[in-house]
Amino acid sequence: MISVEQHLDRILRTVRVIRPFEQGVLDAQGCVLAEDVTARGSLPGFTNSAMDGYAVRALDVAGATEDDPVVLPVVNDIAAGNTNALSLAQGQTMRIMTGAPMPRGADAVVPVEVTDGGVVRVAVRVPSVVGQHVREVGEDVEQGTTILRRGTLLGPGQIALVAAAGVARVKVVPRPRVVVLSTGDELVDVGSTPGFGQIVDSNSLMLTAAVTSVGATPYRVGGVPDDARTLLDTLEGQLVRADAIITTGGVSMGAFDTVKEVLSRVGTVQFDKVAMRPGMPQGFGVLGDEQVPVFTLPGNPVSALVSFHVFVAPALRAMAGRPEPAFPPGYVPAVAAEAFSSIPGKMEFLRVVLDDDRARLAGGQGSHMLGALAAADALAVIPPEVTRVEVGDALECLPLLGREGQ
Amino acid sequence: MISVEQHLDRILRTVRVIRPFEQGVLDAQGCVLAEDVTARGSLPGFTNSAMDGYAVRALDVAGATEDDPVVLPVVNDIAAGNTNALSLAQGQTMRIMTGAPMPRGADAVVPVEVTDGGVVRVAVRVPSVVGQHVREVGEDVEQGTTILRRGTLLGPGQIALVAAAGVARVKVVPRPRVVVLSTGDELVDVGSTPGFGQIVDSNSLMLTAAVTSVGATPYRVGGVPDDARTLLDTLEGQLVRADAIITTGGVSMGAFDTVKEVLSRVGTVQFDKVAMRPGMPQGFGVLGDEQVPVFTLPGNPVSALVSFHVFVAPALRAMAGRPEPAFPPGYVPAVAAEAFSSIPGKMEFLRVVLDDDRARLAGGQGSHMLGALAAADALAVIPPEVTRVEVGDALECLPLLGREGQ
Repeated sequence: MISVEQHLDRILRTVRVIRPFEQGVLDAQGCVLAEDVTARGSLPGFTNSAMDGYAVRALDVAGATEDDPVVLPVVNDIAAGNTNALSLAQGQTMRIMTGAPMPRGADAVVPVEVTDGGVVRVAVRVPSVVGQHVREVGEDVEQGTTILRRGTLLGPGQIALVAAAGVARVKVVPRPRVVVLSTGDELVDVGSTPGFGQIVDSNSLMLTAAVTSVGATPYRVGGVPDDARTLLDTLEGQLVRADAIITTGGVSMGAFDTVKEVLSRVGTVQFDKVAMRPGMPQGFGVLGDEQVPVFTLPGNPVSALVSFHVFVAPALRAMAGRPEPAFPPGYVPAVAAEAFSSIPGKMEFLRVVLDDDRARLAGGQGSHMLGALAAADALAVIPPEVTRVEVGDALECLPLLGREGQ
Repeated sequence: MISVEQHLDRILRTVRVIRPFEQGVLDAQGCVLAEDVTARGSLPGFTNSAMDGYAVRALDVAGATEDDPVVLPVVNDIAAGNTNALSLAQGQTMRIMTGAPMPRGADAVVPVEVTDGGVVRVAVRVPSVVGQHVREVGEDVEQGTTILRRGTLLGPGQIALVAAAGVARVKVVPRPRVVVLSTGDELVDVGSTPGFGQIVDSNSLMLTAAVTSVGATPYRVGGVPDDARTLLDTLEGQLVRADAIITTGGVSMGAFDTVKEVLSRVGTVQFDKVAMRPGMPQGFGVLGDEQVPVFTLPGNPVSALVSFHVFVAPALRAMAGRPEPAFPPGYVPAVAAEAFSSIPGKMEFLRVVLDDDRARLAGGQGSHMLGALAAADALAVIPPEVTRVEVGDALECLPLLGREGQ
């Protein structure tokens, strides 16, 4: 029996960041930069107006007051998108819109709100200072400087900056492509009615959704029968498109545990009992020339989803260049709203409903019990040495993935 | 001038939950159920073994001890996926795998670990009680019962439950389809080099990414020139596929503010000054027979993204059937790590970097400044009445969307 930390540690020491790939900035959303990004152009790229108003020489309106406005002739209109380089002579003004290029000679913008809004001549009622309401070229970003560092996660704001600075494609760590397959002669696909002794293959749907919820790209293979040749052929066929493979089922103590049988013979997959409940039978290793990580999760659905949260999600994040600082990631504190026992010597992951920070059991805690799993908000993580939790005890909870709707 | 709360309130009173639609369970990930879901089958669908071991009559092994095991003949093997209804006679046993159907007559499972693992006859070293390691039909979910309520968000665990209970398709509120268009003669598409007076259309990329990050489906139209006819035709063409439309630019005090010009004449769009910085010029209303909500956001990129967080994101969540309990959603508490001033009379949204809960300004706070936006983790929300924040003051922060990488 190994500890949860030992198994996760072996996984995180084995997986590697996926080879970077150049993508369009929008396609790179949710990915991590694989190299620093340098501005191709300055921001702003040209000196422009921060307001709708009038481009002036500040000196010309220095004496303006409410009672004694300065009146200037309006010699031009400059809209955003005007690509002509204009010049403003002393004693003149031009109407200018937000984002439009400042004419040469002008050094301030008078907002339309403090004028009479004239189009032939304008009365300016307040003085201006040099630079007022003017955005200088490069004041946000200078051409050639590093705007984002390697390792930065690209969200909407980062995508805007990169694009605005003239960079259309970026080298990022791609989203991990994850093949999901479930095993077992008892499985029928969703939509078919299971006969006696059969069950719907819900695991591959659940894990496909879980892969999506961590920002990776799932390929659902679905149910593979308990036949060594078929399983091996399926695995070999999937290796070409996989950055990782997740299987469920066939790893326990049974006489027909095909995953264990097949993967004990190829690759480096090692099967361990991990001191946790649910999820004790775990396997992990690499397969094929590309050393694709393979996670063999237990077949009980609750065990499979808990294993995904504890082992697979941190590994996929690390492969995407987003390593977690520590195990376990993203704990939220809670308080036990009811008392319960916990098995000694195992880390227990109980399905709980959170009402603010008050946690109560979501229902039946059997590893086959989907009802409580679907009702739960989080997994309450009970350390191996704790055997009893009393009302009011502090708990650490791992929020269930995908419950915030991305 | 209206308040942020007034503008948001008008929006949330106008938008409606999108018409529900039946989808496959996996496609429904991240969506909210539009009706209760009823189990088509029981879970488990048949009484089965919770362990790999031996199906027995508990009475037959009642006297088993470590020193004096009970030895029983093994008359059959039952694998998971065995669809035959078998019967166990008194004094016999069958080898049985996890998830395999219990034979009639058996009432307990002896785990393989407490036997000698025999295949012809087996020595059982511990007694058993009726029901031990047996999963009764329907103990998790009974056929015909409601398994998930209307309004439930479908994540991996919910998808597993629905599929396992034999439901392949569910009626959900679909993801809002959101058309994103930016306006302005100055815009060039990313990848083109902007000439003098031109800028890259980063807004439509940024908002497309923002739409994705709230779980909605974006359609990016990109830059539309400042021409009333073109804009109107574009809007009319996009209405057919839009649950909502977001525009940026053309809503300020300028002489060429096409969005304001066009949308003041059609639909119910109302243009307001909202007491916030950045993001003062806002427009909102509905357009077309289907009353499609239209958000006309300011063209400055920081203003546009702040407006998205404050107005559009809550509206899209409400349209997806996920109403927020209160404005503003998802605040996280922080502490000011530096002192700064705030404009009186306006709600200010400052771009801040969070180091644990310590917030410092991310850089230049101009509404055109993408550098600071891209460096920020969150928006610190400073109420209108606050004009000065000192080191150590408590702050409420709105985390920037898409920075957790989905």
